[in-house]
Amino acid sequence: MKTDIEMMRHSCAHLVAAAVYELYPKAKFGVGPTVENGFYYDIDFGTPITEGDLQKIQDKAQELQKQNLEFVRQEVKIDEAIDIFKKLGQDYKVELLNDLKTKGTTKVKDEELAQVVENVDKVTLYQTGKFIDLCRGPHLRSTKDIGVFKLNKLAGAYWRGKSENPQLTRIYGLCFAKQKELDEYLALLIEAEKRDHRKIGQEQELFFIDDLVGKGLIMWQPNGTIIRNEIEKLAVEMERKAGYVRVHTPHMAKEELFLTSGHLPYYKDSMYPGMEMDDGTYYLKAMNCPHHHLIFRHNMRSYRDLPMRIAEYGTCFRNELSGTLAGLLRVRCLTMNDAHIYCRKDQIKQEFRSVLELMMNYFEIFGLKDYWFRLSKWGPDHLKKYINEPKNWEYSESVIREVLQEMKVKFVEAEDEAAFYGPKVDVQFKSVIGREETMSTVQLDFAAKERFALKYIDDTGKENNEVFVIHRAPLSTHERFTAFLIEHYAGIWPVWMAPVQAMLVPVSEKHVEGAKKIKQELFDLGLRVESDEADETLGNKVRKAVQKKAPYIIVVGDKELAGEDWMIRIRGIEKQEKMSKEKFIERISEEIKERK
Amino acid sequence: MKTDIEMMRHSCAHLVAAAVYELYPKAKFGVGPTVENGFYYDIDFGTPITEGDLQKIQDKAQELQKQNLEFVRQEVKIDEAIDIFKKLGQDYKVELLNDLKTKGTTKVKDEELAQVVENVDKVTLYQTGKFIDLCRGPHLRSTKDIGVFKLNKLAGAYWRGKSENPQLTRIYGLCFAKQKELDEYLALLIEAEKRDHRKIGQEQELFFIDDLVGKGLIMWQPNGTIIRNEIEKLAVEMERKAGYVRVHTPHMAKEELFLTSGHLPYYKDSMYPGMEMDDGTYYLKAMNCPHHHLIFRHNMRSYRDLPMRIAEYGTCFRNELSGTLAGLLRVRCLTMNDAHIYCRKDQIKQEFRSVLELMMNYFEIFGLKDYWFRLSKWGPDHLKKYINEPKNWEYSESVIREVLQEMKVKFVEAEDEAAFYGPKVDVQFKSVIGREETMSTVQLDFAAKERFALKYIDDTGKENNEVFVIHRAPLSTHERFTAFLIEHYAGIWPVWMAPVQAMLVPVSEKHVEGAKKIKQELFDLGLRVESDEADETLGNKVRKAVQKKAPYIIVVGDKELAGEDWMIRIRGIEKQEKMSKEKFIERISEEIKERK
Repeated sequence: MKTDIEMMRHSCAHLVAAAVYELYPKAKFGVGPTVENGFYYDIDFGTPITEGDLQKIQDKAQELQKQNLEFVRQEVKIDEAIDIFKKLGQDYKVELLNDLKTKGTTKVKDEELAQVVENVDKVTLYQTGKFIDLCRGPHLRSTKDIGVFKLNKLAGAYWRGKSENPQLTRIYGLCFAKQKELDEYLALLIEAEKRDHRKIGQEQELFFIDDLVGKGLIMWQPNGTIIRNEIEKLAVEMERKAGYVRVHTPHMAKEELFLTSGHLPYYKDSMYPGMEMDDGTYYLKAMNCPHHHLIFRHNMRSYRDLPMRIAEYGTCFRNELSGTLAGLLRVRCLTMNDAHIYCRKDQIKQEFRSVLELMMNYFEIFGLKDYWFRLSKWGPDHLKKYINEPKNWEYSESVIREVLQEMKVKFVEAEDEAAFYGPKVDVQFKSVIGREETMSTVQLDFAAKERFALKYIDDTGKENNEVFVIHRAPLSTHERFTAFLIEHYAGIWPVWMAPVQAMLVPVSEKHVEGAKKIKQELFDLGLRVESDEADETLGNKVRKAVQKKAPYIIVVGDKELAGEDWMIRIRGIEKQEKMSKEKFIERISEEIKERK
Repeated sequence: MKTDIEMMRHSCAHLVAAAVYELYPKAKFGVGPTVENGFYYDIDFGTPITEGDLQKIQDKAQELQKQNLEFVRQEVKIDEAIDIFKKLGQDYKVELLNDLKTKGTTKVKDEELAQVVENVDKVTLYQTGKFIDLCRGPHLRSTKDIGVFKLNKLAGAYWRGKSENPQLTRIYGLCFAKQKELDEYLALLIEAEKRDHRKIGQEQELFFIDDLVGKGLIMWQPNGTIIRNEIEKLAVEMERKAGYVRVHTPHMAKEELFLTSGHLPYYKDSMYPGMEMDDGTYYLKAMNCPHHHLIFRHNMRSYRDLPMRIAEYGTCFRNELSGTLAGLLRVRCLTMNDAHIYCRKDQIKQEFRSVLELMMNYFEIFGLKDYWFRLSKWGPDHLKKYINEPKNWEYSESVIREVLQEMKVKFVEAEDEAAFYGPKVDVQFKSVIGREETMSTVQLDFAAKERFALKYIDDTGKENNEVFVIHRAPLSTHERFTAFLIEHYAGIWPVWMAPVQAMLVPVSEKHVEGAKKIKQELFDLGLRVESDEADETLGNKVRKAVQKKAPYIIVVGDKELAGEDWMIRIRGIEKQEKMSKEKFIERISEEIKERK
């Protein structure tokens, strides 16, 4: 069911389409779903429109809005609908309807599916002014019930997300009940643009995407690799303390493994195409779990060996449509600080607790505070959706709830939202620019034990198949988490992650040699330090270092080289600070060690 | 040209085949090339033979040897040869001849190609007793000129290395001029078996290969991952000091990248099959260089930025035939401590020197001493094989020679053995069991600058395309290097690499808690420590720890828990040593830090 605000946003999409239809009678309409804070509509204008046109459309839509046009619902046979849209020259709608008729589905992306009727005998149409749309509804009664809206962005989008299809123009609009809400959101957008991970990624030379390599495949430059390696180092350190062991598994496996795991055939569309080799078909892995299960079962485990926690900074591959790939947020090759915990039933509670505590430790290090938990449970009314182990469902849900209660954390429960194979806990985040997203997940798995014949020797010396698996990836995927961190820090990295931790600025040519020596000394201590030897003014060099967001900028002149205290510009502090070399080294080393 | 010993070994293969032919008149013969220290012959016996049969064949061969049979050479037209082998029922020879006739090649593996004639009009046959073979020769005059030989192994081998072909029996034989040489080699073989990387890999739970995942794809278990991560850590540390920057690149790229690099179409057979995605064809990378070139050229570089040294512990993929895959020595997914150095012409000498010094530092850490260098040069008589930049060839070969001379290392020069795109230096190793192998390579590359339009801004402010690339992988592939190290150390890992550095053995049940506390204390210092809490006798537990080759075994009893000195069993030392806890921690920490 749509919420009121979603209904309003969706009605606003129709209003905008109606305005387009008035201004461009030959425009062909794709789909126009709601998104967070607004909606979009994909439209084929013949020749692409410009930002200036967008304002015209906005004006026309506001004009129509004031006419209090009703959203008139009409139910028609599918063939009749095809006829109507054929006459209107709306080829995309006709294509959708034909798909619906022949396949029972339009097979578009999830977000677009919502736009399509479920009943394949009849469909509903909605008319707004002169504009008729294929739509499941529901809608507001009239355009006057729409609050405020603003068309804010144009983008190209392939029809149905496939690059072999025509490219349509996607008009994005924001829509809120009140002007104040829109204004606040626009302010957030300005902040978001400043923090855009692609922009900062390029400025700081963190990563790029190269057409020769392909979309969705991230090339991590030296600076981005420093950040990646620091995060991996943190993960290795923290998970060592938490009793994890580490493994390295290949990036692929034979078809047989993914048939065993069930990824094939159910997940096939999301996987890369199979590769025929001389001894079978190989697939790149979409997840690390099947490989970890094989490592667990390779040796006979005793009850003393459990829980066994197998971790890997593992790379997985997803066959996303090229048109949907975007920066670090949607990629085809992703790396996860992944782990699988193999435990006995009586260990589930403690392991869940440990995982949640570990997550919270991570979040604290990164200064992330605005989050809560969400326990997704099975739905006893939809039993067929879930693995048939009622006792395990009841037991595990209750111990996980206990953990959340005992930890006194904020959490909600969601009925009938678990995965087929067990309950899970998601961590929901409010990002610095107000976006809500699921960052991390802890998933319990009752199904792996059967599929992979997991077992251990229990304390009576017998084989026991009751091995429970916990999947967890507290830091999301590395790509998404990095995008999140870039935004979170606005590129102002804490010292321990900063690509350059200290920037030396020699006052003039004659101080370059001395600066080199200092650089080597700090480098030998393990610091990341650069010296700006360009033939420029001191002021210029300092400005560049400030732009680079270096945590420490150290001017190297006669006094400094004579062994006097250093003048240090500490990031975020206006006034320079005087500090002995030893004091500086102590300070920065402490900050790195404590990951401040 | 074959050396004398190779000719003898190859003649011995014919002698053994002749013996097989006497004993098994229906046997069908595949190919029988020489290998290091001997030869093999692939034979289809109809039903496989046993080790007992091997002795019979050996006896028969010795009997024939004494008959002083001559190796009779005969040149025949290819159709005539087909006729002869058809009559003999030698289907495999007929197949080879037909391939030769129609394709001009038999397209078998390199090592087998040597067995096949080059002239496709006529072929040569050699007869030994009753046995006739298709063979290019040359051979000894008579069987009496063969020294001593021993058939030492049976194995299965797919015809032409492909799993869809019939499996033949491969008879391995050793062959030397003198009995003393054979005896010495047999002693080495016993040592090699003790040091076999597959055997030790399994005993120490370092890695395994799983049929569900596929051949040639290594599953690194926790212990093997410790070793891998220690080596990677060493590489990161040493290369940081040597001025390298690190990157992470995706495991694949679009066809277009590999067309640019020239891997396609020339290297296509060695690459995994392409994957059709919605925006083009993607290939898994067989090498890291193309991706690194893109990182180099992504930003405009200045002469001050050069040399730029880009390093990655990068994973590559090779489509080897399944029948040729063996343990860690031949795999389909391999990881390299790889790097590419981008430098100006005037920097080639210094960079080559630095790379060679870095290599030697690595070798010293691993206690590897028996190696020499080999400079592969172009051949001015075969100019078409080489990129047409004579000045660069002359200049670079001469500065590399100077480096080798100045470093006073042992080296040989090999004319006409360079790659198409530049001279290289190989490091040749004599392994602990006497096998000679190429471990590492430094390769200069004149071709990348054109193919990838590499350039920099020189000190006059102009774009300069003279960017030289050095490819280097001092530690071979991780897989092959690990196999080498397992053999080298016979599984007795130095403390810094040992999966378990200290094993605690509580004297009895009542000391288990105390041992746990000590374990935690040592763990917190970063040590890898285990405590054997099994309900077994002290003697038993100590024996197990000795078998596991733990560098330190610490018995935990009343005295130790009362704060008295510890009794420590140091690996390789008979008598236990008494040491305070502090002294032990100091000792082991120092060993780890110094990588002893």
